[in-house]
Amino acid sequence: MAGRLPEPVRALADARIHVVLATVHPDGSPRMTVLWVDRDEDELLLSTVRGRAKERDIARDPRVGLMFLDQENPYSYVEVRGTATLTEQGGRELIDRLSLKYTGDIYRWDDPGEVRVVIRVVADRVLTVG
Amino acid sequence: MAGRLPEPVRALADARIHVVLATVHPDGSPRMTVLWVDRDEDELLLSTVRGRAKERDIARDPRVGLMFLDQENPYSYVEVRGTATLTEQGGRELIDRLSLKYTGDIYRWDDPGEVRVVIRVVADRVLTVG
Repeated sequence: MAGRLPEPVRALADARIHVVLATVHPDGSPRMTVLWVDRDEDELLLSTVRGRAKERDIARDPRVGLMFLDQENPYSYVEVRGTATLTEQGGRELIDRLSLKYTGDIYRWDDPGEVRVVIRVVADRVLTVG
Repeated sequence: MAGRLPEPVRALADARIHVVLATVHPDGSPRMTVLWVDRDEDELLLSTVRGRAKERDIARDPRVGLMFLDQENPYSYVEVRGTATLTEQGGRELIDRLSLKYTGDIYRWDDPGEVRVVIRVVADRVLTVG
């Protein structure tokens, strides 16, 4: 199934759930952050800024995890394990699209000079619980 | 601050939030699961069963992450990075205590012969966002 996103995960990514992204810290331990998520067909899209810890983690080791957990329904969750790529192309458009999706407005919080990066995740494995 | 749990994290651990546990998969990539959590003074307690993937991850590499994320308040979350130890002592008592806390009843779902293990996490670093 590598690369293919099952229907329930597509639906989760299209909803406004905040996902937990796990990356590999330089010392090999896991690092987690909370992010907005969107989808381009079978790929999951997240946004970050060039130079942030998670961006450097992915540049060094592209193996990531994504957890879709809703506390309202905590016994049913989805873990996506995948491979991420980083690209500046479409970075500004993605953060605005995510911001519109989650807040209803474009994104106004980046400092001048910050470079928006698209984190594009291809699923290697999807584990659905519950 | 190693080992010391800030007050907001103590409160989160005492509430009934489901945490995301990140462990290190044998291949070095992150693995995430969702768990109940409790607290013993400054240590965070989780329950698993001997032989499960996360238990084997921790036996091999004790570095873990815990994410406290409430979708109702997603811009305020806490990541705990810590070191875990595994012990069978008190394993049955902990799963019953967790089950009482989260469901109001003792735990009845283990198969005979399953050995309950306590995952005890000492915080090395606590990152509070929002």
